[in-house]
Amino acid sequence: MAEIPTRTTYTVDSLLAVTVQVFNARGYDGTSMEDLSRAAGISKSSIYHHVRGKEELLRLAVGRALDGLFGILEEPEASSGRPVDRLEHVVRRTAEVLLAELPYVTLLLRVRGNTGTEQWALERRRDFDHRVAELLREAVAAGELRADVEPRLATRLLFGMINSIVEWYRPDHGQTDEIPDAVVRLAFDGLRAV
Amino acid sequence: MAEIPTRTTYTVDSLLAVTVQVFNARGYDGTSMEDLSRAAGISKSSIYHHVRGKEELLRLAVGRALDGLFGILEEPEASSGRPVDRLEHVVRRTAEVLLAELPYVTLLLRVRGNTGTEQWALERRRDFDHRVAELLREAVAAGELRADVEPRLATRLLFGMINSIVEWYRPDHGQTDEIPDAVVRLAFDGLRAV
Repeated sequence: MAEIPTRTTYTVDSLLAVTVQVFNARGYDGTSMEDLSRAAGISKSSIYHHVRGKEELLRLAVGRALDGLFGILEEPEASSGRPVDRLEHVVRRTAEVLLAELPYVTLLLRVRGNTGTEQWALERRRDFDHRVAELLREAVAAGELRADVEPRLATRLLFGMINSIVEWYRPDHGQTDEIPDAVVRLAFDGLRAV
Repeated sequence: MAEIPTRTTYTVDSLLAVTVQVFNARGYDGTSMEDLSRAAGISKSSIYHHVRGKEELLRLAVGRALDGLFGILEEPEASSGRPVDRLEHVVRRTAEVLLAELPYVTLLLRVRGNTGTEQWALERRRDFDHRVAELLREAVAAGELRADVEPRLATRLLFGMINSIVEWYRPDHGQTDEIPDAVVRLAFDGLRAV
């Protein structure tokens, strides 16, 4: 974790920024409060001044990703207009939020475990997927999207494409703007030249 | 690993079938020869009768996935015809091989580490991705695929969609035939109704 500059004064937000990098590098289960204290360059008791412990840090970190994602569904373009246009907005914004909150969304997508917080995060992720699948179903019903791919399967493949970004994108690549455009083009119109 | 029936006589293939499940459940690094011996229900020396050790088992297991994938590129439909049709064949067959060799491809996609075998597997995976990206570039050059998505980015999103199958597909879901069709439809023509 040598690349993270240590600091002496922390807010919850700046502590989270360090925490999420350690969780992503070592895994949540593999991270101790000792690891977090070392990475942040502050004592464990200073961390306990901000949060109750490791699980609260996880809840705050994945909560930030979830707030970003659920916030999309509240945007005007996601709640009125033709279903296909609302879905297109949600797909583009999901890719944008993933890139803007990359370490937080990466952590959210890697959550697997059995603590209450991990179960809560998995359930909220499923809620988001279901909300998007529902929008996709509406667009199919309106005749705006093809009916020959089962909506649940289409949603899984769509999120597979979007979520894969965390596996290969590196912030020093640049091309942040290009990615949401490419996702929308492939998802809605495919690779084929028209 | 209680669901794997133990047996007293093993071939390399049946030993691999057990091994790949243990590697996928515990991670390659987290698996000891002791774990493999326990899962297979045979002694470590019986395993050493077949292979030199854990790293050879990994090489054989990911080799099986890689042979399946590279085999696609040798198929007649992948080597002659219009680039777009060759690419469509490769995309469909990649999804089919992934489903047919699910635990082996899952292991291949999770390889991250630093042993020689892991480095070799990562390099072979990159080779495969480059071969597909090259085919995609040919199809763009032939005017068969859209030119407004950078080919390397398109390839990443395409494999993101296909490779995500290992994250959500469960063999008891059924619908094996449906998935390669859905992948080809989304990848080439997108979700939009025409």
